[in-house]
Amino acid sequence: MTQDSRMEAEEREVPEIVVGRLPIYLRALAHMAEEGQRIVASQELAQRLGMSSAQIRKDLSHFGEFGKQGMGYDVAYLRNQLRNILKVDRVWDMVLVGAGDLGHAIANYGGFEGRGFRVVAVFDSNPQKIGRQLARCEIRDVADLPEVVRDMGVQVGIVAVPASVAQDVVDKLVAGGVKAILNYAPISVIVPGGVHVQHIDPVAHLQRMSYYLD
Amino acid sequence: MTQDSRMEAEEREVPEIVVGRLPIYLRALAHMAEEGQRIVASQELAQRLGMSSAQIRKDLSHFGEFGKQGMGYDVAYLRNQLRNILKVDRVWDMVLVGAGDLGHAIANYGGFEGRGFRVVAVFDSNPQKIGRQLARCEIRDVADLPEVVRDMGVQVGIVAVPASVAQDVVDKLVAGGVKAILNYAPISVIVPGGVHVQHIDPVAHLQRMSYYLD
Repeated sequence: MTQDSRMEAEEREVPEIVVGRLPIYLRALAHMAEEGQRIVASQELAQRLGMSSAQIRKDLSHFGEFGKQGMGYDVAYLRNQLRNILKVDRVWDMVLVGAGDLGHAIANYGGFEGRGFRVVAVFDSNPQKIGRQLARCEIRDVADLPEVVRDMGVQVGIVAVPASVAQDVVDKLVAGGVKAILNYAPISVIVPGGVHVQHIDPVAHLQRMSYYLD
Repeated sequence: MTQDSRMEAEEREVPEIVVGRLPIYLRALAHMAEEGQRIVASQELAQRLGMSSAQIRKDLSHFGEFGKQGMGYDVAYLRNQLRNILKVDRVWDMVLVGAGDLGHAIANYGGFEGRGFRVVAVFDSNPQKIGRQLARCEIRDVADLPEVVRDMGVQVGIVAVPASVAQDVVDKLVAGGVKAILNYAPISVIVPGGVHVQHIDPVAHLQRMSYYLD
């Protein structure tokens, strides 16, 4: 696929739900690459993910042509293309708000590396914590968040604070120019247009499984 | 919808991807109920979730009839039906493995309550932690996990351990009879047929948003 044909394909608006499935495809392709697999049929990818191969082919067709009919996909090529499309062929700086148990777990999380993200600053409101070190960051005062974030030009924020203060933290992130927020607090937050929020909701994952329990 | 018609509808196998969307609908309905909304059109629900109303109607049709054409859904009724379908009209006991930062955050998580789940036991391998209290549980030795889980009859497990030991912990959970595993470790784990795994993957959520960043 040429750069031009991708640009053209991307200009048509892709449904959010389709974009939302690309990281799942990317994760599966990364596992396949680690296992040394070089070619994958859409049927095999579909089976692995519990979905239909028609859905996968339709999702990918929003972004261009990635393989020849009946030939399967080249794992490394498709993986690279998806990394480009999702813009994780670079590394996005993130700020983490909340240096409690969850914040510590996130700051030390081993899963960000090589997948497009890294924590570059940590904020908390507790004077006992401000100034201390967490992973490779010094914990800063959340009151300074908008200014610091704006100065650093960071576009991604992680919210790991109690539900009661999550909206206030989100407002500060938005004030600092953050455009993408990963919210771990068990509450829905409100953001202006143009700002994206994803909610880490472990209960939704559990409910997907309780359906199958007796 | 009668009990019989639901039983009949459920006998046809529902695609996992459809089951996976029900918790999202349930969460949106819960918010609407909290806001005092009593009726919702599939179009409004669709818009709120960034998907098509046809998809929502098709998903729900797997489980029966939940509203009359053009009348919208009764929020409380549909919410109750989804709670029944997902089997969260009861409370599932869960065991948590890993009493590190993440385990502490999960044990103290305020989002389980009222949504069908509670942590009833915590395990760790660190002798310094075994015997200590975490939330309302005494931390137990992970070596005893299969036996304890079997004795308690627990079917749901949460894995909050480093990637290097996640598969071993999953094997212990499976040996104890656990059928649903929520995995926070940044690694894919292998389970036998009949055991469900959901992976908490914050990077997949971040990648859904980086697509929209410049």
